[in-house]
Amino acid sequence: MRNIKVILQYEGTKYQGWQRQESTSNTIQGRLEALLTKMCGRKVEVDGSGRTDAGVHAYGQVANFHIDTEMELQEIMDYMNRYLPEDIAVIDIEEMPERFHSRLNAKGKTYRYRVINSSVPHIFDRRYAYTVEERLDVEAMRRAAGALCGTHDYKAFTSSKKSRKSTVRTVDSIEIEKEGDEIRFTFKGNGFLFHMVRIMMGTLLEAGMHKTDEAQIRKLLESGTRQEAGYLVPAKGLALVEVRYS
Amino acid sequence: MRNIKVILQYEGTKYQGWQRQESTSNTIQGRLEALLTKMCGRKVEVDGSGRTDAGVHAYGQVANFHIDTEMELQEIMDYMNRYLPEDIAVIDIEEMPERFHSRLNAKGKTYRYRVINSSVPHIFDRRYAYTVEERLDVEAMRRAAGALCGTHDYKAFTSSKKSRKSTVRTVDSIEIEKEGDEIRFTFKGNGFLFHMVRIMMGTLLEAGMHKTDEAQIRKLLESGTRQEAGYLVPAKGLALVEVRYS
Repeated sequence: MRNIKVILQYEGTKYQGWQRQESTSNTIQGRLEALLTKMCGRKVEVDGSGRTDAGVHAYGQVANFHIDTEMELQEIMDYMNRYLPEDIAVIDIEEMPERFHSRLNAKGKTYRYRVINSSVPHIFDRRYAYTVEERLDVEAMRRAAGALCGTHDYKAFTSSKKSRKSTVRTVDSIEIEKEGDEIRFTFKGNGFLFHMVRIMMGTLLEAGMHKTDEAQIRKLLESGTRQEAGYLVPAKGLALVEVRYS
Repeated sequence: MRNIKVILQYEGTKYQGWQRQESTSNTIQGRLEALLTKMCGRKVEVDGSGRTDAGVHAYGQVANFHIDTEMELQEIMDYMNRYLPEDIAVIDIEEMPERFHSRLNAKGKTYRYRVINSSVPHIFDRRYAYTVEERLDVEAMRRAAGALCGTHDYKAFTSSKKSRKSTVRTVDSIEIEKEGDEIRFTFKGNGFLFHMVRIMMGTLLEAGMHKTDEAQIRKLLESGTRQEAGYLVPAKGLALVEVRYS
């Protein structure tokens, strides 16, 4: 069996997220598996580097699957791009050693969140950015972002109820760039909990509105109380940009 | 009566173009007029700087209308943005002298056409750019663009059958920029005939594939034969970027 790694782009708007579900065929993983199963004439499972939620986009999601076709890599990629819906694409393909696993071997991820800080609609960004009309203080958000970085127990920053697994993660950096009405937040870390980026974003926006600050965030990281963290911002502003491997 | 000028953005994907039609309410002008008529309690007509075809986008369409409301400009803009569909927005508003007319006073326009020159799908651009898989020779297109500029009778470059009106126009410049897989064509001129930008684009793409060249284009401008010009490229790659007034 060959082990094929693909880099994927998708617009999450229409999908129920990455992960295959019994109740719907409308997931990215579900679509890929159905297509590859058809291509190979036998059941193919696709592993992703991680789940993306319903409505979240990807510029560089990584997945891998084991197949026994003799097709060339370029043929597989062309076949996939021909039959995938217009909002999912394979932008790169590579043959990997048998033991490569897109999730288990991932060393780090980059997510980006886009905010339009304006009361004037930006219609071309409406599917990819979240609009905040209240003026945001970028410097205050940068200070708050500094407090969010590091190695911490991020249990205040997840919607997951499971307390068994570790909620310690390392956030390497949160970069905040402003260009015109748009503010882009780039999160780099070794991994992110369920809803973690979106709750950190809600917290940063509250800092930008002077409703919280770096001192409160430091306390919050110690207390671990979800209710004291920011709100869950909408999925549409979020995109998985890159997955890093060693 | 006050004369109000607005700058509009819209994504043309869902609309039957700018111009109001008897048979459908689904035009940009139709939507604006319905909204303003409701706002004012009496029939309001909206004049645009020109029509855009079904599927064509706008970053800076200009329109004006006469109304007798006492609302402030910001209130009018906010009202429009609250009730317009999410793919149409007013991004600027201004009060003009009584005689200002968005079409009659327009001195020049800028259109942009976006091409993705790749066999790998660019899913985030799929509504805004036209994909050409065959490798395009940018320098050949630049030479062809040079031949298309100037003051000429552009009757080979329009789908309009009406021969009464003048088909002489001035194209000031056609800039071609390549960035990664994307090629952007920027057309500046004093005005463009029905389908003119899209037929010039088809001609430029044929030059990029070495099916025509600047010598043939010069002959074509003299003969004025539509059949010898390029094909009509899809509307979705086109956007009206700016309308200039003196």
